[in-house]
Amino acid sequence: MGIDPGLNKTGVGVVEWSKGKILYAGHALIAPAVKMSLPDRLNVIINGIKEFTEQYSPHSAAVENVFYSVNAKSSLLLGQTRGAIIAALLFSKVPIYEFSALQIKQSVVGYGKAEKEQIKKMVELHLNRDFDKTPLDVTDALACAICLALHQTSKIY
Amino acid sequence: MGIDPGLNKTGVGVVEWSKGKILYAGHALIAPAVKMSLPDRLNVIINGIKEFTEQYSPHSAAVENVFYSVNAKSSLLLGQTRGAIIAALLFSKVPIYEFSALQIKQSVVGYGKAEKEQIKKMVELHLNRDFDKTPLDVTDALACAICLALHQTSKIY
Repeated sequence: MGIDPGLNKTGVGVVEWSKGKILYAGHALIAPAVKMSLPDRLNVIINGIKEFTEQYSPHSAAVENVFYSVNAKSSLLLGQTRGAIIAALLFSKVPIYEFSALQIKQSVVGYGKAEKEQIKKMVELHLNRDFDKTPLDVTDALACAICLALHQTSKIY
Repeated sequence: MGIDPGLNKTGVGVVEWSKGKILYAGHALIAPAVKMSLPDRLNVIINGIKEFTEQYSPHSAAVENVFYSVNAKSSLLLGQTRGAIIAALLFSKVPIYEFSALQIKQSVVGYGKAEKEQIKKMVELHLNRDFDKTPLDVTDALACAICLALHQTSKIY
């Protein structure tokens, strides 16, 4: 399971490893209404994560490490979102991994400075599926899930 | 219940409202080992919050709004801590309130620019108790709890 955290839009994606291939399993976009209070928005996100983990029972989850070169105010909001997501995974007892955007891009695209559209193209190739109308938050989350799958299989085999 | 979030030290304090007076009920300092991974440190904090809410069954909790004038990297870490704490309260179904440091100082000290030592003195006066050897993270959390109590009683009565 891969998660791309965002207070407005959190992308979630699941892949499975079957007979030496990574296959698409599912995805979700969690987008709490902007007008709600912060605790209410975080509640929508953690409930979304909880439902998703109940549905897919993932072996483990990778949460993208968020970037802090933006301003301190947005870092604080993004941080709170990521903290709530980690808490939701801890509550669901899903083992947590963290990858930087650089690690994900290098694993999935083979190039650390790839743009989001390039990531989407490579996710389509990896999973042999069209994500043309899928939000970039979701394809980023799937890239994170693919990175985790590659990381784990390389460790296991 | 009042909470002063911090990745290294999270202060927690509980007061109760009895016969027109605010009384001290309990406090805790949650300090996860710095060498642990971020998810593990957040796990220590959310388990601490969970145990505390189970022990005191608080009517509601106030989480101090964190400051974002510091640098973006620390904002991100502090944000993740605060997000995990809010998630823990949501899981425990404790109603959540948010107060800024300014609101807390104005409620408890009557002066928005009070220093932490002044806050401690006023917390001692409010609760008629000596907090000489108590960490400032805890007296800040108790100030947050007092602010919540004053806020709610002024709304109710």
